[in-house]
Amino acid sequence: MAETPIRLGMVGGGADAFIGAVHRIASRLDGHYTLLAGALSSTPEKARASAEALGLPRSYDSFEAMAEAEAARDDGIEAVAIVTPNHVHAPAAKAFLKRGIHVICDKPLTSTVDDAEDLAKTAEASGALFVLTHNYTGYPVVRQARQMVADGALGTLRLVQVEYAQDWMTGPAEGKQAEWRVDPARSGGGGSIGDIGTHAYNLACFVSGLTLEALAADLHAFGAGRTLDDNAHVMLRWKGGAKGMLWCSQVAPGNENALKLRIYGDRGGLEWVQEEPNHLWYTPFGEPKRLLTRNGAGATEANTSLCRVPGGHPEGYLEAFANIYTEAARAIHARRLGQDVPGDLAYPTIHDGLDGMRFIDACLRSAQGDSAWVAP
Amino acid sequence: MAETPIRLGMVGGGADAFIGAVHRIASRLDGHYTLLAGALSSTPEKARASAEALGLPRSYDSFEAMAEAEAARDDGIEAVAIVTPNHVHAPAAKAFLKRGIHVICDKPLTSTVDDAEDLAKTAEASGALFVLTHNYTGYPVVRQARQMVADGALGTLRLVQVEYAQDWMTGPAEGKQAEWRVDPARSGGGGSIGDIGTHAYNLACFVSGLTLEALAADLHAFGAGRTLDDNAHVMLRWKGGAKGMLWCSQVAPGNENALKLRIYGDRGGLEWVQEEPNHLWYTPFGEPKRLLTRNGAGATEANTSLCRVPGGHPEGYLEAFANIYTEAARAIHARRLGQDVPGDLAYPTIHDGLDGMRFIDACLRSAQGDSAWVAP
Amino acid sequence: MAETPIRLGMVGGGADAFIGAVHRIASRLDGHYTLLAGALSSTPEKARASAEALGLPRSYDSFEAMAEAEAARDDGIEAVAIVTPNHVHAPAAKAFLKRGIHVICDKPLTSTVDDAEDLAKTAEASGALFVLTHNYTGYPVVRQARQMVADGALGTLRLVQVEYAQDWMTGPAEGKQAEWRVDPARSGGGGSIGDIGTHAYNLACFVSGLTLEALAADLHAFGAGRTLDDNAHVMLRWKGGAKGMLWCSQVAPGNENALKLRIYGDRGGLEWVQEEPNHLWYTPFGEPKRLLTRNGAGATEANTSLCRVPGGHPEGYLEAFANIYTEAARAIHARRLGQDVPGDLAYPTIHDGLDGMRFIDACLRSAQGDSAWVAP
Amino acid sequence: MAETPIRLGMVGGGADAFIGAVHRIASRLDGHYTLLAGALSSTPEKARASAEALGLPRSYDSFEAMAEAEAARDDGIEAVAIVTPNHVHAPAAKAFLKRGIHVICDKPLTSTVDDAEDLAKTAEASGALFVLTHNYTGYPVVRQARQMVADGALGTLRLVQVEYAQDWMTGPAEGKQAEWRVDPARSGGGGSIGDIGTHAYNLACFVSGLTLEALAADLHAFGAGRTLDDNAHVMLRWKGGAKGMLWCSQVAPGNENALKLRIYGDRGGLEWVQEEPNHLWYTPFGEPKRLLTRNGAGATEANTSLCRVPGGHPEGYLEAFANIYTEAARAIHARRLGQDVPGDLAYPTIHDGLDGMRFIDACLRSAQGDSAWVAP
Repeated sequence: MAETPIRLGMVGGGADAFIGAVHRIASRLDGHYTLLAGALSSTPEKARASAEALGLPRSYDSFEAMAEAEAARDDGIEAVAIVTPNHVHAPAAKAFLKRGIHVICDKPLTSTVDDAEDLAKTAEASGALFVLTHNYTGYPVVRQARQMVADGALGTLRLVQVEYAQDWMTGPAEGKQAEWRVDPARSGGGGSIGDIGTHAYNLACFVSGLTLEALAADLHAFGAGRTLDDNAHVMLRWKGGAKGMLWCSQVAPGNENALKLRIYGDRGGLEWVQEEPNHLWYTPFGEPKRLLTRNGAGATEANTSLCRVPGGHPEGYLEAFANIYTEAARAIHARRLGQDVPGDLAYPTIHDGLDGMRFIDACLRSAQGDSAWVAP
Repeated sequence: MAETPIRLGMVGGGADAFIGAVHRIASRLDGHYTLLAGALSSTPEKARASAEALGLPRSYDSFEAMAEAEAARDDGIEAVAIVTPNHVHAPAAKAFLKRGIHVICDKPLTSTVDDAEDLAKTAEASGALFVLTHNYTGYPVVRQARQMVADGALGTLRLVQVEYAQDWMTGPAEGKQAEWRVDPARSGGGGSIGDIGTHAYNLACFVSGLTLEALAADLHAFGAGRTLDDNAHVMLRWKGGAKGMLWCSQVAPGNENALKLRIYGDRGGLEWVQEEPNHLWYTPFGEPKRLLTRNGAGATEANTSLCRVPGGHPEGYLEAFANIYTEAARAIHARRLGQDVPGDLAYPTIHDGLDGMRFIDACLRSAQGDSAWVAP
Repeated sequence: MAETPIRLGMVGGGADAFIGAVHRIASRLDGHYTLLAGALSSTPEKARASAEALGLPRSYDSFEAMAEAEAARDDGIEAVAIVTPNHVHAPAAKAFLKRGIHVICDKPLTSTVDDAEDLAKTAEASGALFVLTHNYTGYPVVRQARQMVADGALGTLRLVQVEYAQDWMTGPAEGKQAEWRVDPARSGGGGSIGDIGTHAYNLACFVSGLTLEALAADLHAFGAGRTLDDNAHVMLRWKGGAKGMLWCSQVAPGNENALKLRIYGDRGGLEWVQEEPNHLWYTPFGEPKRLLTRNGAGATEANTSLCRVPGGHPEGYLEAFANIYTEAARAIHARRLGQDVPGDLAYPTIHDGLDGMRFIDACLRSAQGDSAWVAP
Repeated sequence: MAETPIRLGMVGGGADAFIGAVHRIASRLDGHYTLLAGALSSTPEKARASAEALGLPRSYDSFEAMAEAEAARDDGIEAVAIVTPNHVHAPAAKAFLKRGIHVICDKPLTSTVDDAEDLAKTAEASGALFVLTHNYTGYPVVRQARQMVADGALGTLRLVQVEYAQDWMTGPAEGKQAEWRVDPARSGGGGSIGDIGTHAYNLACFVSGLTLEALAADLHAFGAGRTLDDNAHVMLRWKGGAKGMLWCSQVAPGNENALKLRIYGDRGGLEWVQEEPNHLWYTPFGEPKRLLTRNGAGATEANTSLCRVPGGHPEGYLEAFANIYTEAARAIHARRLGQDVPGDLAYPTIHDGLDGMRFIDACLRSAQGDSAWVAP
């Protein structure tokens, strides 16, 4: 029998927010959630207007009010999506976690490492689930890549090269999307390194299974009057001896959303590019390159189990995002029944979020120390 | 204020059907529909089990029973998705159209031209909307391509080359997807030409705006014991003097879902490949090729208005399918208010379906006449 | 010890000729030839000026004079490259063949089938070698493709799709390259079908090993005032049951020299594109696509034996052309020693040339018969 | 009238050497050189056998003997190609330069900075020409890229990202090509950074026109028992404020010869990949990407002047190498006539070689200082 959809709320994500709309589609795509309540903006009028435009049954003026009221209802929300600017993630998440409401939170986790550590403690104490939407981990072929590395297809890892290039901040930062991202009070101390560098770092860790030992970073703001970095070069040393590089940029004309991961071991290599997300290149050393596809020939269970349509019918960004939501739904359904979270779920958690904050912090420390090697 | 979601029913699309699941996701993605009723299988037990698995409020044993009962309810469905094998399209659609219920129907329209003509008459008489899910017309850059051709970017058209290659029937036809497609009684007289050739033909017409004058076809069944074509070569002559070719195949190893359209005029060319659906190549003659993208630099209103996320965040097959559903929703909402259907909507209609059936029929006639030129 | 370079002459290929310069580079690249004599133009002054500009020791006013004089010298040329417009190929080749001088001739073989048959008789009677520069057969991965098909990697062949698209005649035909190609007296009755269609047809035959049974063609001249076709659509039926299509065009904006071959059997597929000539896609049915490369992992002897530099160091059009010249040199060296031509040589011969002429002729006949199926 | 070919000698490049054969083809391709003399190996018997196999008129047992004897002949060589392991470049080059014989030398310039500086002094004092075969600068579209940057098409440069990945040393280093490259006595202190990193660095400088201010390097030898780096990560700071990264590796499975350059300014970006050398991506900020091609639409004089065949007929590695040789020939011909070297020539010189040696040295110093920023 069909599961009853999960009752979902949302904090942030008002009318003109990009990522709020993405979360709503992701929650809807597989039919596992019903969005019932929201505190969609820190400006109450805007919150109400957005809720009405979306047909939301219950609108609140603040996340505190929403947490309290929903927790008190029998039919209150079971989970909340937090899609605000970074500095609001921690207080909002804590308000819901303390009341046992599961949290699905956008990245980076918070705006400071202290906030992140504090939030992690709250999350662990709460017993509620905490899902971090590092959505690029939701692509089916990324899952296959991760499994292949774990299964030893590449042998001993030597190199992890990751980059994430965009061009939308080549000129002056304008518009709602840009504004808060260049404001340290709302973003934290990282600019591009927090906004997209953490995605790149998370993806590298997710697929390689490696832990970072040290990094050396050179951060720079090219945009006139910008205080936060819009470009970052980072050299990486992974525990166990692998090396690598991370480059992220928001000032590289011609790059829309060019997240790219390459991993090399002594037995083979893998390459994945987010803008062609249905493809995964695999090269066993000394053999021809193979083009693995989403749900196509050579796809493994890790790949096919996250697919909705056959190979050749492209699934994209929203489907990958929805895969995180659907994994979250499976975990929440298990909790409803008092069961353990299924072992095959691989959505990012608060630990990945804390790890990401420490990565940003290490980049900032290294950059301030003229690119000295620092531990994250 | 948010529109009330459209009350939707479904005929066909039981548990193991591919296209039924696609229609359900497409209807859900933008939040414009609520699926309330279904006759999901011609086998009543299976229909009921499928409805229960999907959490459908109302399940029926046949589309006739469903049409009658729903039409009688105040809160009955306003629209129905028909996703059965081809030969059921016509009787099912007629049952709903006669009762003023809008129809969203899978392609090809029917299994014979006679059925198609009859259905077209019913549809016109009914006043209800008829939407045909030639979903590849829903891709944003396909819409931009169409507009560019209409605006004269290519000059006078000379060539329309279209192909649609798959490989899934290279071996023996097995499984539910394959079985009815190789059965003339359920598919009609066309095999690959009906299943995918009509998509290719529809796309060529949709983007080029041309009307076919004549075709010469060579159809063949390579699969052992197969009676319907699994490969078709067709030469095309368009009204006004353009020429072209259509190739469709289900026995071309290495092709997952390789629909490709190329259009050339005396001033420029366009190329689009479904497996990289966020890209459109445009070459003004004598200038460098340009890579236009979904919602990226150079995107026109026809492109951006169908996008949910920025360029570089790939949207795929399901989003294109959902665009057809969302255009249908806009039309249905207009009808609710007694208004005309908005002029910018471009979803395929019963006329495209009838045109597709005549195309299939012409291919069969030409092939039987040793590839003589015939008019569609 | 090094072989003494072969003494080479050239007919045609004066100052502003494209293909003459290509032949000269191809003959020089591997050091197997010394160009000593030429009748580089039908205009004697131009012939002399071109010869002087190239530093040629001996210049002649006509190919007849050259054939006679060179045959009379002890150190006369051993081979001649014929790079004139098509209608001169036959008389020039015959003048040299009759005197036992080997011929390396550009394609298509002649301007009529009669001339071709006549020339073939002369060539056979002469005992001299006749090499036809269908240069695309000289690419290393094309050779590997051919061998793979012969070895059964694709199983029983079902489909051979070949196309050759250019755009340089989209506007009016101007310049030396265009002029003679649109003149039936010099080109023969085929336009694009003779100029590039024969390349495509030859490549399809070369790699597939198939023989054509029948074709149905639709030829058209889009360019204003043009009498010869600049676009051709051809449906193909191969002996043994395979089918296919050939499209060639010189009016497809955005295509520089887009020759593309795809072959499909019941066990796998191959795809090759001339503009990326170091790559060959191979798909064993049901397995991931593999990217085979020139001299790279997975390269066979048929591939590596024609390579000068390692994989990843692109070789191109001139190297492929030079491979034909070098194979010709190996044959000529064998003849010098009174030995048989080595068995591994695969350069095209007069038989391929005659086959090409019959193909052109069949296309013209079919087109005149409203695309009726005709045997070549 | 045709120029008399330049009399050329060669040091190194015996039977099984890769790069010697490349130089010979490059010298031959455009017909500007005749190879007359060689000291092809440091082992006299091997030198003689190689010369005989190549049909060389004059063979010497050592470069010293060759320099002395050739300088004494009226018809002695005018230029010499030096294609030995790195440590022999300096003594060999000096022997010829001192006698006024032009030098065409492989890269990197020498095995130490001291040798390089000493050689540079000798070269300047000699008045003879010194051409360094950083061959990747010879690709036509690379020349166009350089001109576009110089003309301001990208605006103020911000980022120069360059990488050069190979995989041939993933396993143990074996064979003649690998052996000397892993031997510090013959290669110098740099492994991959000297062998391919210098190519990447040279290309970045050549196209961007920038001068390096500082670098921070992390070098590593992954191969068992290897003392020289087979992978290098380098962060770059260019004078004037641009930043960048250089990655080179010989242990990245799946990469044949993957040299890639990306340059971004505040007005646009460029991207070039050596394995598709006929293409250049150009993105004016805010506009669609454009695909510029070798000798195709949009090609500038800097591009077309180095092309032999039309766009779409791929030229490759050997043609780019030959472009350096042909530019050298134009310079030598000017010298013959007592004229200045033409101003449009852009072949790399001893200054680029010295710059490259300082780059290697800086990488080694930085790596030894735990990746501290150092000036080159």
